[in-house]
Amino acid sequence: MDARSMWLYRLYYSNTCQWTLSLTIFLILLLAFVETPSSLTSTADVRFRSAPWDPPCGLTESVEALCLLVFVADVSVKSYLVGWAQFRKNPWLLAYLAVLVVSLADWIVSLSLVCQEPLRIRRLFRPFFLMQNSSMMKKTLKCIRSSLPEMASVVLLLALHLCVFTMLGMLLFTGEKQDDGQDRERLTYFRNLPEALTSLLVLLTTANNPDVMTPAYSKNRAYAIFFIVFTLIGSLFLMNLLTAIIYNQFRGYLMKSFQTSLFRRRLGARAAYEVLSSMSTRGEAHPRGVGVDPQDFLQVLQRVQLDSHQKPVIMEKVRSYGGDLLSAEEFQKLFNEFDKRVIKERPPRPEYRSPFLRSAQFLFSHRYFDYLGNLIALGNLVSISVFLVFDADVLPGDRDDFVLGILNCVFILYYVLELLLKAFALGLRGYLSYSSNVFDGLLTVVLLVLEISTLAVYRFPHPGWKPEMLGLLSLWDMARLVNMFIVFRFLRIIPSMKLMALVASTILDLIKNMRAFGGILVVVYYIFAILGISLFRGVVVVPGNGSLAPDNSSAPCGSFEQLEYWANNFDDFAAALITLWNVMVVNNWQVFLDAYRRFSGPWSKMYFVLWWLVSSVIWVNLFLALILEVSAEAPSCPWGLALLALAAGSPLECPRP
Amino acid sequence: MDARSMWLYRLYYSNTCQWTLSLTIFLILLLAFVETPSSLTSTADVRFRSAPWDPPCGLTESVEALCLLVFVADVSVKSYLVGWAQFRKNPWLLAYLAVLVVSLADWIVSLSLVCQEPLRIRRLFRPFFLMQNSSMMKKTLKCIRSSLPEMASVVLLLALHLCVFTMLGMLLFTGEKQDDGQDRERLTYFRNLPEALTSLLVLLTTANNPDVMTPAYSKNRAYAIFFIVFTLIGSLFLMNLLTAIIYNQFRGYLMKSFQTSLFRRRLGARAAYEVLSSMSTRGEAHPRGVGVDPQDFLQVLQRVQLDSHQKPVIMEKVRSYGGDLLSAEEFQKLFNEFDKRVIKERPPRPEYRSPFLRSAQFLFSHRYFDYLGNLIALGNLVSISVFLVFDADVLPGDRDDFVLGILNCVFILYYVLELLLKAFALGLRGYLSYSSNVFDGLLTVVLLVLEISTLAVYRFPHPGWKPEMLGLLSLWDMARLVNMFIVFRFLRIIPSMKLMALVASTILDLIKNMRAFGGILVVVYYIFAILGISLFRGVVVVPGNGSLAPDNSSAPCGSFEQLEYWANNFDDFAAALITLWNVMVVNNWQVFLDAYRRFSGPWSKMYFVLWWLVSSVIWVNLFLALILEVSAEAPSCPWGLALLALAAGSPLECPRP
Repeated sequence: MDARSMWLYRLYYSNTCQWTLSLTIFLILLLAFVETPSSLTSTADVRFRSAPWDPPCGLTESVEALCLLVFVADVSVKSYLVGWAQFRKNPWLLAYLAVLVVSLADWIVSLSLVCQEPLRIRRLFRPFFLMQNSSMMKKTLKCIRSSLPEMASVVLLLALHLCVFTMLGMLLFTGEKQDDGQDRERLTYFRNLPEALTSLLVLLTTANNPDVMTPAYSKNRAYAIFFIVFTLIGSLFLMNLLTAIIYNQFRGYLMKSFQTSLFRRRLGARAAYEVLSSMSTRGEAHPRGVGVDPQDFLQVLQRVQLDSHQKPVIMEKVRSYGGDLLSAEEFQKLFNEFDKRVIKERPPRPEYRSPFLRSAQFLFSHRYFDYLGNLIALGNLVSISVFLVFDADVLPGDRDDFVLGILNCVFILYYVLELLLKAFALGLRGYLSYSSNVFDGLLTVVLLVLEISTLAVYRFPHPGWKPEMLGLLSLWDMARLVNMFIVFRFLRIIPSMKLMALVASTILDLIKNMRAFGGILVVVYYIFAILGISLFRGVVVVPGNGSLAPDNSSAPCGSFEQLEYWANNFDDFAAALITLWNVMVVNNWQVFLDAYRRFSGPWSKMYFVLWWLVSSVIWVNLFLALILEVSAEAPSCPWGLALLALAAGSPLECPRP
Repeated sequence: MDARSMWLYRLYYSNTCQWTLSLTIFLILLLAFVETPSSLTSTADVRFRSAPWDPPCGLTESVEALCLLVFVADVSVKSYLVGWAQFRKNPWLLAYLAVLVVSLADWIVSLSLVCQEPLRIRRLFRPFFLMQNSSMMKKTLKCIRSSLPEMASVVLLLALHLCVFTMLGMLLFTGEKQDDGQDRERLTYFRNLPEALTSLLVLLTTANNPDVMTPAYSKNRAYAIFFIVFTLIGSLFLMNLLTAIIYNQFRGYLMKSFQTSLFRRRLGARAAYEVLSSMSTRGEAHPRGVGVDPQDFLQVLQRVQLDSHQKPVIMEKVRSYGGDLLSAEEFQKLFNEFDKRVIKERPPRPEYRSPFLRSAQFLFSHRYFDYLGNLIALGNLVSISVFLVFDADVLPGDRDDFVLGILNCVFILYYVLELLLKAFALGLRGYLSYSSNVFDGLLTVVLLVLEISTLAVYRFPHPGWKPEMLGLLSLWDMARLVNMFIVFRFLRIIPSMKLMALVASTILDLIKNMRAFGGILVVVYYIFAILGISLFRGVVVVPGNGSLAPDNSSAPCGSFEQLEYWANNFDDFAAALITLWNVMVVNNWQVFLDAYRRFSGPWSKMYFVLWWLVSSVIWVNLFLALILEVSAEAPSCPWGLALLALAAGSPLECPRP
């Protein structure tokens, strides 16, 4: 390996370069919001939407070109670093190159048609850049791919189940001389094969549960059995089987990836040891045989980028060995320092002379003072709730905000006092060294500023105070802001309750662990949103005479029009995301199925069913598998502690509480 | 232990006694359908329901008295067998006694008031008899109880999450000068604290997903973030955490119970060995030291109740040892025979003389002949589907059933032919020894009978054949029956497809394993149904002038009245079960919440929320945990094979496919 490659390698993996790459990926993904059709309107509702801003041709394209150039540089450096032989064998790198070539070609076509091209394929390929950049996501994808055959078998079984019950249902509900309930069932849900299939597919997600059985069940109890058996087999058995299969595939997945990363680090440390020890023996013949000279190691450490907290700790340790050569084990042990959680040293408390100040310091730095603060915050929350309840039946115009105004003043005064007292007891730097205090202090300052500006504009509260009638600025907005901040401030109680803290910290750690899963979600959302835009852009139009308020009394109950789902369209990227979210949550998705069938044609169902399978069936189960996996890693541990251990990257020994 | 106790013990654990007990439990649970309010009407819809049959006072009561007497006998025998010291320590037996005393007292009160008492407490206690009789259910209950504290912590977190977002939501949506979307949001979903809480609780189950955000989101995209964040935290994180907690509690639960039963059997076998060996050495001083004389063992075996297939196998094995004494290991090994699956011996095929008959026999007993049969059944199914699709747009009165009639005839003729040929090839007894053939043959015979009677009534099909216009008997019903049987007949394909067979057998085995879970479901359904009847009986009444068809055009969309959920009431036991099912499936349960709030008062919400927690949150998660547990037992096995091993009761060695 020559020095130039080494320099390039270091440059490529430097923080700057990696950040630039991440930023570029972020930027190119973000473009979807700005490009035509741009999402820069306040609402997505086709009834109220103003004409969106149309970026001039060349604006977004030039940003895109910059991003693509960065990727070109990235792929060339990468291929240079791994070498041609490796490059040919690496499907990800090959795909990277291919995607770049296609994107650039598409970009040129785009510009040569003055941005009037009907289709932009390169938009579909953009999420690839995100996926390509994360090894964890590639691993997760591999895991998903390997569980596809088993999943396919269950999906096949689901399809069979659906078909059998569709036929049974159609035979059950096609009578002529039958009672009127059966006939209504037929006309509403079992009119023809596609409709019956859709009805039962939706029932599989339970999204039309009591409705689909209502006409028949109203006539005869026995018809309910058909629907209940269908739901039992489909939703309870088969859907949960899918969960189990995905979970089985992910068993040990997290653990394995942690073990792999630990193993790689050990291997790296060992290699470093070999290199250093060979150098030290080459340089001078040391009396004590093979080993690493601490001086060499210190020199290396000096030039290495490390966490600013960990570097001095390790250097201190190395110095403690004096002049002796380090053995391989000692060398390895030094690296274990990285696994330890850094315990931040708090700045020392200020020392006061006077005994009065000392006792005050003791008082205000005691944890009971914290508890008092929490109690006051709770009181504030309760007072807001009480006013919310009282004011609910009063019209906003008739409300008297006098008492609430006074109370808010008092509470904010207390918070300021608390901030000052704590800063006095712990010292300013000591106060700021706790992140909870920073959160608290920030909110208190914001509250104080808001309150002072409120008082400045509307004077001091007095009976019959109705500030929103007076000023230019909407005080109501400000008061609402203040109150919301107080609700957020209340969240500081969470770390004080042990059980809560455990579960909450679990969730936080989970979020850290699930970046790969989140990334995959972003990828599928992106692809489906772009697909949806190219398929369904502009199909949702307000019917009738074009007036802004179509009378929805004529629309049947439960239809897209009656429910006023006008904002759920695919006319721009942001709207498409929300529409996809609503279908992913599954409830009422039959309304979307029906509406897009009417607006765009029967094949639109394919798109929604596919999205349901990908998002709700696969991704949600994946997420559940992750949670189960994390919680199952250390069965003897109390919940959450296992997670903490995992998040710290240490091998799983359950810390006793 | 004296002989009389032994005799009593044997009698009590004899099949007859245990069956009587199970039957009694079944009977007393079934009473709920017949008792006032009886479920013996064809519909539960309050609009069309006829007056239900009112059983005369004393009829159900006498059946109940008989059942209670059986339970009294049961508890006295049980307490006699375990002894007073054990009885006092056993909470289940004590509770059994208490429940019986209360039930009998309530029964006497009931009769003395001539069945006009307002409340029957004993109905609530009936599921106890079911629970008390199953050790597996007691174990499961214990498991659930021990996971309650952890579940409570997550539920608490859920409640906190709900409260914080309710306050935020109320602060967000109470503007006056705000836009009209915000105001509609306030009026519809955030009018006051209880309503806002309900809206968000329902959103937690995603049952009102796009609706709750529609008014605000139509005005401004940003409002969607509030609802999405709420759903993400609540439904995705916290609800799945609950699943994980329940699953963690049930890890190893099934395995442990299998191990326990295996251990008990081994212990029993060892004890039997000790007793038998001590007897044989006492009787005659055998030269070869300690051991069991096979003759003694054979005598015991002769008098023991065993499976008719296993008994001769084991006796044969014992005889093979000749006169040597059996060592403990050999004795233990004999009992392993019980774990082996009995391979049923097929009766020998009939032997034919003529070479033609022989080759025909070879042909028709070949599995390709089975495949041909499956293909024909598939063709039949396809033909029915095609006719269903074609006939869907034709009114039932205008349909021409000529071709379908002919096709049905042809197919049924083939099925009969297949039956005869197979019976010829395998011999009648050989044919019947396959359960799949029994299923097939039975359906074929039924189809034949139906077809012949159809032909007898309506003559042979001819163009323009519209049999339903001619006869007295509705031919349409018969044809539908025939077609449904054909759909069922198609199910015989399942065992032929390997992957399908695997998954299907998994499901069947799962059902076997989940009897305890099913029992708990029955218990909670029973208790909640009885509670619901006593709380909400008769509150659902048809509004308006009492006409049978209230015009629902005046009811707002999405309300109980507009959706015509009239059949979902608590007026009798069967209706209550279906209502509870619909709430358990969760979709549209806000309609029930709202309707019962209006019909019965705001406290009815407590009942429904509690039911949601018990059924949907706890039980459904329990079920998922069971499926995961079963599938996780043998991670290296292909799915389903592990289950087969489990179901066979053998220790888990994964059989290779």
